[in-house]
Amino acid sequence: MSGKKEPHFEQVALIGLGLIGSSLGHAMRRRGLAREIVGFARSEATRTRALELGFVDRVEENAGAATDGADLVILCTPVGIVGAVAQEIAPHLAKGTILTDVGSVKASLVEDVSPHVPEGVHFIPGHPISGTEKSGPDAGFAELFDGRWCILTPIDGSDPEAVVKLSQFWEACGSKVDVMEAKHHDLVLAITSHLPHLIAYNIVGTADDLETVTKSEVIKYSAGGFRDSTRLAASDPTMWRDVCLNNRDAILEMFGRFSEDLAAMQRAIRWGDGDALFNLFTRTRDIRRSIIDAGQDSAAPNFGRDLPKDGEA
Amino acid sequence: MSGKKEPHFEQVALIGLGLIGSSLGHAMRRRGLAREIVGFARSEATRTRALELGFVDRVEENAGAATDGADLVILCTPVGIVGAVAQEIAPHLAKGTILTDVGSVKASLVEDVSPHVPEGVHFIPGHPISGTEKSGPDAGFAELFDGRWCILTPIDGSDPEAVVKLSQFWEACGSKVDVMEAKHHDLVLAITSHLPHLIAYNIVGTADDLETVTKSEVIKYSAGGFRDSTRLAASDPTMWRDVCLNNRDAILEMFGRFSEDLAAMQRAIRWGDGDALFNLFTRTRDIRRSIIDAGQDSAAPNFGRDLPKDGEA
Repeated sequence: MSGKKEPHFEQVALIGLGLIGSSLGHAMRRRGLAREIVGFARSEATRTRALELGFVDRVEENAGAATDGADLVILCTPVGIVGAVAQEIAPHLAKGTILTDVGSVKASLVEDVSPHVPEGVHFIPGHPISGTEKSGPDAGFAELFDGRWCILTPIDGSDPEAVVKLSQFWEACGSKVDVMEAKHHDLVLAITSHLPHLIAYNIVGTADDLETVTKSEVIKYSAGGFRDSTRLAASDPTMWRDVCLNNRDAILEMFGRFSEDLAAMQRAIRWGDGDALFNLFTRTRDIRRSIIDAGQDSAAPNFGRDLPKDGEA
Repeated sequence: MSGKKEPHFEQVALIGLGLIGSSLGHAMRRRGLAREIVGFARSEATRTRALELGFVDRVEENAGAATDGADLVILCTPVGIVGAVAQEIAPHLAKGTILTDVGSVKASLVEDVSPHVPEGVHFIPGHPISGTEKSGPDAGFAELFDGRWCILTPIDGSDPEAVVKLSQFWEACGSKVDVMEAKHHDLVLAITSHLPHLIAYNIVGTADDLETVTKSEVIKYSAGGFRDSTRLAASDPTMWRDVCLNNRDAILEMFGRFSEDLAAMQRAIRWGDGDALFNLFTRTRDIRRSIIDAGQDSAAPNFGRDLPKDGEA
């Protein structure tokens, strides 16, 4: 494989063909990163659709068959079942194969998967920090990873050469790559991803339960800020249930801090402490600016969202 | 003025030239809704900039002078000072003039402004449910109100003809118009706007205070969801302080409900109640769909945000 500019794999197995799996297929196609892309999904409809969309060359009816002969296997299923999937494909993993994943939590995943990894197989957990609120094989697109970070959390004894190769693969998919410990990853993501999503689900749930404000009013006047929460709260329910169940401690730690701060804000509102509120509302602006400067969000007002002009879909 | 298709005012006074004031100027220009637009802002720099941008015909150094001769006066200052501004301009309000505002809270505003309104002046509070996270005269644009709702909260004894005329004015600015009581408005907005903004400020504040996750990590990995919160949390601090101080009861009511729901979610996470989490994460999707169907948000993934491709600004 030396002599090629792009890190190249002979046969890549995508186990799971949802938003991330399909985007990986498209991203590999864009730069010719694999000679053959083999896909597996439990649902036959998904497998058929993947072939129609063309981001895989071939699909298999079971994960083991999709793994046979692969030199890169990427687990793109919800975090809750990766352990079972790893057990299923273990006998099909050849020596020297790189086994990775895209799950939103890493420490519990390492625990679930590691026992099943045969000797000589390079298990290197990974997590691309990118996504949308859409799910399924139709949601994927080649540019999803462009300019976003992908975090690798190699385990003790990971082969450095394999880590470099996987890192170059992600870069060729458009990502920037960072390496850190699984436990630290879970803490970082608890605040940058899990808390904002769970809070968004909670806001939308609270609004849905109101008896003093109708659902129609909530929808009509959502441009006041609420609609932003609903985007995050439209994400894949299975994925987010599994995140909650598998990153419990870090999430509860962030919930604790958030609740304390919320109580302080409530108190400031109740007692009319305008200065405390003004100070908080001012310092949060800097973080937004830094995110835009880092190229991680659009500088355009309202994310530059494109709205139907007449207010009707 | 009859015979014209557009509701037309001879002289419109914009008291306050920030995001909403400047957008109103542009929106009036777009459809020729005023013979003359006169602007006032406390800051000389803002007044000069407004003239340069051309969304006003003339500026005045005090609010009274800007009000002289106007048949429509729109208060576009932060909610906290509208009472004082109303007192200042009261002697300059001619009989038959429509006096309105764009503030995010209505009941306290009615209390603050009403005592100063001379007899024969039509005071009709209003609130366009539209905005961005940007502030100042450069932030305005003519399309801000297109397809969004504007809520009018006429007070007892409001002249129906004046209410209709103001309603037609907002429609000509691109809005759809609803009428409701001030107190109900404040409850509706507490959930559709105030709670989501305050929670966003709180999430960003909590992240900013962490000692286990660095600020650089929070920024780099913000594409996981956090960046959405930072947009709302970049809104105008003065406006949001005033919202908190002036809609206390409704906001605290929504905070109470939200906190209860959050405690229930925390408990479900702690005890691994996957079904409860899955159910919540599923029903919130419907609300997103309804908002898109109602034309109040973009159907595109990630709001269709336009990101720098190489991840650098």
